[in-house]
Amino acid sequence: MLRLFNLSKDKEEDILKIIKNREEENPEVISNVLNILKDIRKDGDKALVKYTKDFDKVLLNSNSIKVSKEEIEEAFNIVEESFIKAIKSAIKNIEFYHSKQVRNGYSIVKEGEVFMGQLVLPLERIGVYVPGGTASYPSSVVMNVIPAKVAGVKEIVMVTPPSANGGINPYIAVAASLAGVSEIYKVGGAQAIGALAYGTESIKRVDKIVGPGNIYVAMAKKLVFGTVDIDMVAGPSEILIVADENANSKFVAADLMSQAEHDKLAASILLTTSEEKYNEIIKELEVQIEEMERKDIIKESFSNYGMALICKDIKECIRISNIIAPEHLELMVENSMEYLGEVKNAGSIFLGYYTPEPLGDYYAGPNHVLPTNGTARFSSPLSVDSFIKKSSYLYYSKGELIKAAEDIMLLASKEGLTAHGNSVKVRFCND
Amino acid sequence: MLRLFNLSKDKEEDILKIIKNREEENPEVISNVLNILKDIRKDGDKALVKYTKDFDKVLLNSNSIKVSKEEIEEAFNIVEESFIKAIKSAIKNIEFYHSKQVRNGYSIVKEGEVFMGQLVLPLERIGVYVPGGTASYPSSVVMNVIPAKVAGVKEIVMVTPPSANGGINPYIAVAASLAGVSEIYKVGGAQAIGALAYGTESIKRVDKIVGPGNIYVAMAKKLVFGTVDIDMVAGPSEILIVADENANSKFVAADLMSQAEHDKLAASILLTTSEEKYNEIIKELEVQIEEMERKDIIKESFSNYGMALICKDIKECIRISNIIAPEHLELMVENSMEYLGEVKNAGSIFLGYYTPEPLGDYYAGPNHVLPTNGTARFSSPLSVDSFIKKSSYLYYSKGELIKAAEDIMLLASKEGLTAHGNSVKVRFCND
Repeated sequence: MLRLFNLSKDKEEDILKIIKNREEENPEVISNVLNILKDIRKDGDKALVKYTKDFDKVLLNSNSIKVSKEEIEEAFNIVEESFIKAIKSAIKNIEFYHSKQVRNGYSIVKEGEVFMGQLVLPLERIGVYVPGGTASYPSSVVMNVIPAKVAGVKEIVMVTPPSANGGINPYIAVAASLAGVSEIYKVGGAQAIGALAYGTESIKRVDKIVGPGNIYVAMAKKLVFGTVDIDMVAGPSEILIVADENANSKFVAADLMSQAEHDKLAASILLTTSEEKYNEIIKELEVQIEEMERKDIIKESFSNYGMALICKDIKECIRISNIIAPEHLELMVENSMEYLGEVKNAGSIFLGYYTPEPLGDYYAGPNHVLPTNGTARFSSPLSVDSFIKKSSYLYYSKGELIKAAEDIMLLASKEGLTAHGNSVKVRFCND
Repeated sequence: MLRLFNLSKDKEEDILKIIKNREEENPEVISNVLNILKDIRKDGDKALVKYTKDFDKVLLNSNSIKVSKEEIEEAFNIVEESFIKAIKSAIKNIEFYHSKQVRNGYSIVKEGEVFMGQLVLPLERIGVYVPGGTASYPSSVVMNVIPAKVAGVKEIVMVTPPSANGGINPYIAVAASLAGVSEIYKVGGAQAIGALAYGTESIKRVDKIVGPGNIYVAMAKKLVFGTVDIDMVAGPSEILIVADENANSKFVAADLMSQAEHDKLAASILLTTSEEKYNEIIKELEVQIEEMERKDIIKESFSNYGMALICKDIKECIRISNIIAPEHLELMVENSMEYLGEVKNAGSIFLGYYTPEPLGDYYAGPNHVLPTNGTARFSSPLSVDSFIKKSSYLYYSKGELIKAAEDIMLLASKEGLTAHGNSVKVRFCND
């Protein structure tokens, strides 16, 4: 269960240590992944087929790597109407939220003949990794694809491991089709990341790879970074809930469990203003936890990384939250919006008593790909910005260059870079 | 000298191979840097002082690590008025260009009681690395500091190795003071990166580290990435010049050398439309190169990575440039602005005959910290965006949550995440 700390008795740094160092290391992973990437680079499709046979127990050939139109039509026949309705509503909300992030370039015309500015261009081709396995994650498809689509990326490629019969999970296929994916390939693991980064006969290389995966996928993304861009290497998840006296303990307990069920490394943190409230929430947790399908994961996550802290007021709760920089922050307090200005570091902020984290995870509009493990101090949710690149441009006329010439040559000479100065000098002294 | 290729005779991929794989590897660097970082983390200032003694041959103490007010005043007395005037003009131009990059958050109020949006916040504290050694680079100071300042970062910390007498280079000190640095420390190398990432008694840890450095600094930045953010690990530089029949060969030759003098790994690439033009430029190069102070570096860079290519027209030149994705692209062609829309991948674009790359390097406004080594395909110049972070926020009323409840619970159940569904269910079924 959540360990209780008290700021008046416990040292702040001891408390914060608990959620640090949640990474698990595995030295074998890196060498395995390096070998897989090398093979993909050397043998292309042949290596893709081999690893899919080894790891997924599915025999692909060059014709069946790519998901066909017929397979997608079939998926639409399989899934329930209610699912299509729900995912369409989610897509609409997510598109609307992300459409506000679209940016234009700018240009500056200065007196005289000086013209400069910044271009904003979409990436040309991106890859989205979607995990396979027993569960399917259509929400992951839409959260990764829609910002790219809104940014104007023309070629959005998805890779996902084949199901046991060599097909594709129908919920994933439907979500991909509705979100606007242009190509889908039935490959997964480090081999799929290699194919996206280097290209094979069937899969053209991309400019950026996004999406979550297991430790092999995460390691492969780290290793191809530089050849292509990547979103982030996601660490374990966390939720931090600030609950005041009026917060319903049932709601608080339910929300604490909603992140803990993801992963035994997830951290659930409760900040509240009285020990009575804490006791009430713990009592609720003890009842609700037994009804959860994934109660074993929840219990392990709570006992390793769960924590509760009694603070003197809401402002102190937020001060502590800013140090932790949680992925998800729920402010279950009266007048929650009044505290928004105090929040300095958090991936996504959920305000009030009726905004549980899963509302944002699936549906409302903001992205669920968020900075984890304290990185909200310096990084941001996945957004349209993640799928664009910028270039600066500059034009000076001869007359304007001559006005600046002396200063530039002086600065170049102070840095000992005389060929830099020469490129200005040659335009006036030698012609 | 620049090797000549012809698209009608040579294979495109063979041509492009030449500028790839310019990185030099050194397996000792990683273990040395790991040790330094470990020591800084363990011993703080004590280790900083020790490594500064070992590597810079300067004995610091806890009082002399930080540059004092008096040292900065003294620097202003040493440097020439002309330098102060030049750097002030550069700062004014760079501030103006970057001020156009400032962004606001947004908020969305949807019908019913739904409220959501995105906050844009400056990072709280950043570190700028400025190399020491024989040359000083005040331009690097202003290019890294100003975007942070414009973004609203309150604490801008600079680190730079001490000069031989234990002081600070006066040009660096003056540039830092004018650009708006708030603290300067006389430490350099991997030990300075460690201090910025983990903090010591004298130097409080930062959220992000930017700025160029030698291979030890670059490796240290790679290794602390995740604990803090970093800008990029800069690879070797390149310039690609598209020159038409009317381009002055003297100018083209001078500009090709301006990047080559940086580094023997720099790549200088000339794309032009006739062999006569190529011959004329080579003749110019042979004359000008002998007058350059850094001619040995220029010659080595040209002979290893220099290349020229005859294309059938300007559009074909730009198509090839888009594949190379150069850091610097000069379009020395008539009506250069008409081609801007064709450019897909380039860090910074210089238009016309009187916009040499050093104008942008030092002075005009755009940033000189640019994606190198082909990464302009997916990354961008340093900008105000590099010093902000975003958070999403979301508020739903009870009435609005109930409308969405069924869809969210359905999507959660399809992903097998029942505790997610429970957090919605508990708000309506159990209270």
